[in-house]
Amino acid sequence: MITGNTEFIAHIGFPTHAFKAPMIYNPWFEAQGINAIVVPMSCQVQDYPALLRSLFKLTNIRGALITMPHKVSTVGLLDEVSPTAAIAGSCNAVRPGPDGRLQGDMFDGEGFVRGLKRKGFEPRGRRALVVGAGGVGCAIAASLAAAGVLEMDLFDVNDDAARGLAQRLLQHYPTMTVRTGRKDPAGFELVVNATPLGMNEGDPLPIDMGRVDPSCFVGEVVMKAEMTAFLKAAQARGCRIQVGSDMLFEMIPAYLEFFGFGSTTPEILRSVARLNY
Amino acid sequence: MITGNTEFIAHIGFPTHAFKAPMIYNPWFEAQGINAIVVPMSCQVQDYPALLRSLFKLTNIRGALITMPHKVSTVGLLDEVSPTAAIAGSCNAVRPGPDGRLQGDMFDGEGFVRGLKRKGFEPRGRRALVVGAGGVGCAIAASLAAAGVLEMDLFDVNDDAARGLAQRLLQHYPTMTVRTGRKDPAGFELVVNATPLGMNEGDPLPIDMGRVDPSCFVGEVVMKAEMTAFLKAAQARGCRIQVGSDMLFEMIPAYLEFFGFGSTTPEILRSVARLNY
Repeated sequence: MITGNTEFIAHIGFPTHAFKAPMIYNPWFEAQGINAIVVPMSCQVQDYPALLRSLFKLTNIRGALITMPHKVSTVGLLDEVSPTAAIAGSCNAVRPGPDGRLQGDMFDGEGFVRGLKRKGFEPRGRRALVVGAGGVGCAIAASLAAAGVLEMDLFDVNDDAARGLAQRLLQHYPTMTVRTGRKDPAGFELVVNATPLGMNEGDPLPIDMGRVDPSCFVGEVVMKAEMTAFLKAAQARGCRIQVGSDMLFEMIPAYLEFFGFGSTTPEILRSVARLNY
Repeated sequence: MITGNTEFIAHIGFPTHAFKAPMIYNPWFEAQGINAIVVPMSCQVQDYPALLRSLFKLTNIRGALITMPHKVSTVGLLDEVSPTAAIAGSCNAVRPGPDGRLQGDMFDGEGFVRGLKRKGFEPRGRRALVVGAGGVGCAIAASLAAAGVLEMDLFDVNDDAARGLAQRLLQHYPTMTVRTGRKDPAGFELVVNATPLGMNEGDPLPIDMGRVDPSCFVGEVVMKAEMTAFLKAAQARGCRIQVGSDMLFEMIPAYLEFFGFGSTTPEILRSVARLNY
């Protein structure tokens, strides 16, 4: 129940209709007896910088979850951003630091990595192909680098996006080998679809699945269906897989920790969430 | 359940711990199937003007409930305020007007008046004594004037406050008779305690109850106890009375109407509210 002592997390984006976080965080807060809520705030681009500043003057804000179209601009509005957010070039979690400084981070890719580890795949020292260098691809690449991936191929239909990401990765991880412009999965131990392909009926597969090694681990970000065509093809080759919603439920404990709400597990979150997956 | 389609009412004050509106509005929204919430926002004085402007740029805000210490400053921050808010000198409800203009009103006194009418007391043409010219006293005086009270005595230990209120009343209602500086209830048909006397054990009564006419209607704003010492004394004299929480539950339908949520009754609100009265 919302009372005068309730703290809140502002969930800021535009539009807000497809927001999922309220239906996961809020039932979890309720189940834990935590007096906090995630509140959707529908904010247009030109109004966002002033809103962010004003909201963080409030004394009962615990943080903000930032989504489209504000994730990129947020990086430039904060006092501190994590290396992962800097590499990702976007920031979707903001909290007030101890001295009132605004701190930003990005845990989407961390959710992907946590899911891999939980399934027994250790990224350290591996070779990974990330297809798609948009927001989520950049976040996954940054978190894979932080987790110790040594070689990475990055592909995007917009080659500049892939090359920009490669540069930012190498700035922070100069010993990595990072290539762009190719999306041949042969020889990789981890392959990630971070493109929107699979969102719509009839989408082509993002890569040539015939060249994926059966020992490769294959991860997906599309959540339109639990088993996308991409994942079905990977499974048919004998690959281990990670579905899109695993990334979602794996990232939320990281966000809750960042906001100071303690820890939880994807299983608990799935059990309380009011979503269809 | 909060979703991406939820609209909100910002409930802004400092501190927020004693807020009651969330525990009345939110259960009512839930019972009605209205996807809206009242969210407490703890905002200090220096941060308020910018916050108010920023919040009303959001496209899912339905309005704001304003409380201490911002009710007075709000009058100067809006594009339009009602005569009642202008006389009261404070504003505790803000909504976006059709052209993006911010409109303000004040229904605390309207709640008091609705309660009187529901109990069969028609204020039109009556003589009223209002003791206490703070925020709530000013609001009640303004709404009594709007409801047709013709003669009013206003008393406050700070005589300037009472005289300022009298001036504002006479600006809007020049045919009224308004006096200040006396608090003798003899001859009045309505007597209102709008002072905080009764909040604390051992408080003196606000007026000499021995001079209240048994036919007088006596209203109270203090909600510390259902039956304050003031109301008990009035009842002992045979007066009809109105308790403080009646004003609270009578005003909320007016606020809901202002925000465009349709109408309801104090009885329905009392039945869903999660409060101890």
